[in-house]
Amino acid sequence: MTALAPTAAAPALAPHADTALAALGGLRINGARLLQRLNELAAIGATPEGACCRLALTDDDRAGRERVIGWMRELGLQVQIDPIGNLFGLRPGTDDLPPVMTGSHIDTVRTGGRYDGCLGVIGGLEVVHTLNDAGIRTRRPLVVAAFTNEEGARFAPDMLGSLVYAGGLPLAEALDRIAIDGARLGDELVRIGQAGSAPLPLYRPHAYVELHIEQGPVLDAEGITIGAVENLQGISWQELTLTGQSNHAGTTPMRLRHDAGYAAAAIGHFLRGLTKEMGGNQVATVGALTLHPNLINVIPARAVMTVDLRNTDETRLQQAEQALNAFLATLAKEEGVTITSRRLARFEPVVFDAGVAALIARQAQALGHSCRPMTSGAGHDAQMLARLCPTAMVFVPSVKGISHNPAEHTAPEHLAAGADVLLRTLVALGA
Amino acid sequence: MTALAPTAAAPALAPHADTALAALGGLRINGARLLQRLNELAAIGATPEGACCRLALTDDDRAGRERVIGWMRELGLQVQIDPIGNLFGLRPGTDDLPPVMTGSHIDTVRTGGRYDGCLGVIGGLEVVHTLNDAGIRTRRPLVVAAFTNEEGARFAPDMLGSLVYAGGLPLAEALDRIAIDGARLGDELVRIGQAGSAPLPLYRPHAYVELHIEQGPVLDAEGITIGAVENLQGISWQELTLTGQSNHAGTTPMRLRHDAGYAAAAIGHFLRGLTKEMGGNQVATVGALTLHPNLINVIPARAVMTVDLRNTDETRLQQAEQALNAFLATLAKEEGVTITSRRLARFEPVVFDAGVAALIARQAQALGHSCRPMTSGAGHDAQMLARLCPTAMVFVPSVKGISHNPAEHTAPEHLAAGADVLLRTLVALGA
Repeated sequence: MTALAPTAAAPALAPHADTALAALGGLRINGARLLQRLNELAAIGATPEGACCRLALTDDDRAGRERVIGWMRELGLQVQIDPIGNLFGLRPGTDDLPPVMTGSHIDTVRTGGRYDGCLGVIGGLEVVHTLNDAGIRTRRPLVVAAFTNEEGARFAPDMLGSLVYAGGLPLAEALDRIAIDGARLGDELVRIGQAGSAPLPLYRPHAYVELHIEQGPVLDAEGITIGAVENLQGISWQELTLTGQSNHAGTTPMRLRHDAGYAAAAIGHFLRGLTKEMGGNQVATVGALTLHPNLINVIPARAVMTVDLRNTDETRLQQAEQALNAFLATLAKEEGVTITSRRLARFEPVVFDAGVAALIARQAQALGHSCRPMTSGAGHDAQMLARLCPTAMVFVPSVKGISHNPAEHTAPEHLAAGADVLLRTLVALGA
Repeated sequence: MTALAPTAAAPALAPHADTALAALGGLRINGARLLQRLNELAAIGATPEGACCRLALTDDDRAGRERVIGWMRELGLQVQIDPIGNLFGLRPGTDDLPPVMTGSHIDTVRTGGRYDGCLGVIGGLEVVHTLNDAGIRTRRPLVVAAFTNEEGARFAPDMLGSLVYAGGLPLAEALDRIAIDGARLGDELVRIGQAGSAPLPLYRPHAYVELHIEQGPVLDAEGITIGAVENLQGISWQELTLTGQSNHAGTTPMRLRHDAGYAAAAIGHFLRGLTKEMGGNQVATVGALTLHPNLINVIPARAVMTVDLRNTDETRLQQAEQALNAFLATLAKEEGVTITSRRLARFEPVVFDAGVAALIARQAQALGHSCRPMTSGAGHDAQMLARLCPTAMVFVPSVKGISHNPAEHTAPEHLAAGADVLLRTLVALGA
């Protein structure tokens, strides 16, 4: 990962940006107000264990959406909903130009935390509130968006609302998706009163910036406040089945073994070495592994294991896949095992706009916050918006990297720092 | 493993051995008769799947014992049973000297094959039958033994009858053992009429030779007919629990991981390397491994795995244990995982009598059978008898090394070859 030079040119940046930023002076968002809205939203769908459960298009999601719409109206935003339920609040600019958009999602997984997604939506509202209070108008309109079913915990796929918005999934197909509880997505949208009639896509933004918690441990471990997210990992998932020969652990000499368990271990060991050799942001994980017959004194006849490879660079990700394939071929021959692979998932990496990422890094620096360029290991609505316009993300630390868990936490000063960076970035892009 | 020189001195061999062997001329056992008795015994406790189920001291074991006693009486042997149910048939010699003993066991596991154990007992009877038919008397008495509960499938420990015989477990303690079905061993012995009154031990043999199927793949893979077993592996079993930290497989950089699954793979990989480095007959197996939470996109927080180490040399086995311990300490530090170990079993290796093993090899050679020195990877009654007298074993091939399985098989000519080697070995030792 190369460092972002704070003075790098930002191609998407308007000439008046510096003037607009100077006009902000020492303006800051209101951290207490930001936290209050986050807590208020977290109370909707709160579980006894302290988690948030607002699965997409449930009654709790409706209540959350209605609260967000209420805030939008209080802030003077023009609210519109599109046919897939994406929610938009527009603050007009001085000129009739394509807007600068920010946002995220407010749906959660079943055991969601308070900040995943919500910080991006409420952070956007807090920017609007701050600009309103200061009487500052941007040249371009600002839009705060909340996209439908980002988590994918009730309907597949995840990031469904932003995917439809970006033209990656036909509306009719999305409306026909069936939930894990059997409900049809289109019917649920109508049921909760969130099937809008805005054009699709409603806006083709000038730029999109999403504020989000990292959901990983990097910023927390390094004591850094702001991540300027410049790309998002590609994912390669496969399941390997290794078939050897079951035999007595005592009477079978090493040279006569066809040990599926050893082969699985060799793959795990190889993958770690591969990530070291490739360096950069190549990661590899064997998360699931099952041996058969799984007895202490029997050489395993079969192993079924998953391999999760991720990289921000498609070429490098393919290199990792090819290196693994070559290793599997050699291993199968040497150990006398057969290895079959089943593809479980494959997504190419997304590269965000370098100018927008550099702009984010410069605003963090201007505010005196430590900042580093980052890669997102998780999927976000921003990756869909990147198909439409220059896009990047602002990350703030997740304590111990914990997410999708009631223990998800980000320090209040980090939440505020992220919203301050968002404020300046949106103002610069809107100039 | 060093090759046995066929001309090596056999310390246990009497001076008249060569004369006695010469007197045998071309005498061979009757392979058809051997197979017939094996099949007859296999029919007792036969299962629909083609396996033999004569768990120790059950009604089927009683029926098997009664058939063996019947054969012993038909062959003119003096039958005695000791208080732990070990069964002996003695063929008097010309002199009143400690006898040469052969034998094995006739109890089976729940899915036993036809030859495991039975070949040693019925092979001994076939030797007696052959000597009777030829009118040959040995100087020393010959004894054919069938030891109680060798498999350990109904009562723990395995090799119980021979262990008590060799003084390794007090009789009273053995009689109090409780079966997996709740029955007391002493009560079951009385119930099936096999609680004898012979002294314990009834004989202190001049030598003990046991004919057995290999239950491993070596002879079959190498196309060799006879194994001259010179030792029996020591066993070290432990269960390792590795505790790391569960984290997101995408957002957690390699350098921040504490991956219990990787640590388990590293151990499996290390053990294979260790066996290569140590060479000889060091074997290592990870038979069982479970990951938690065992999900494709979550770095494993915990791994529980077994490690099975075996060697014929106690010093080398300890070296392997120490090398593993040193590796675990380094791995725990490097990966940031904690590793705890629970000892499941530990048995020292048994070294058989080199003279008896060399004698076996010479008889195989004299008969024109290919032969190799071998190590037993499984436990046998012979390892208990080795505490009392010079002992070794004769192995014949197991097809594909399969045992404790209805598919257990040894070619009829290999069964006969083993019994021919046994005949000559017993005659030489009995001279």
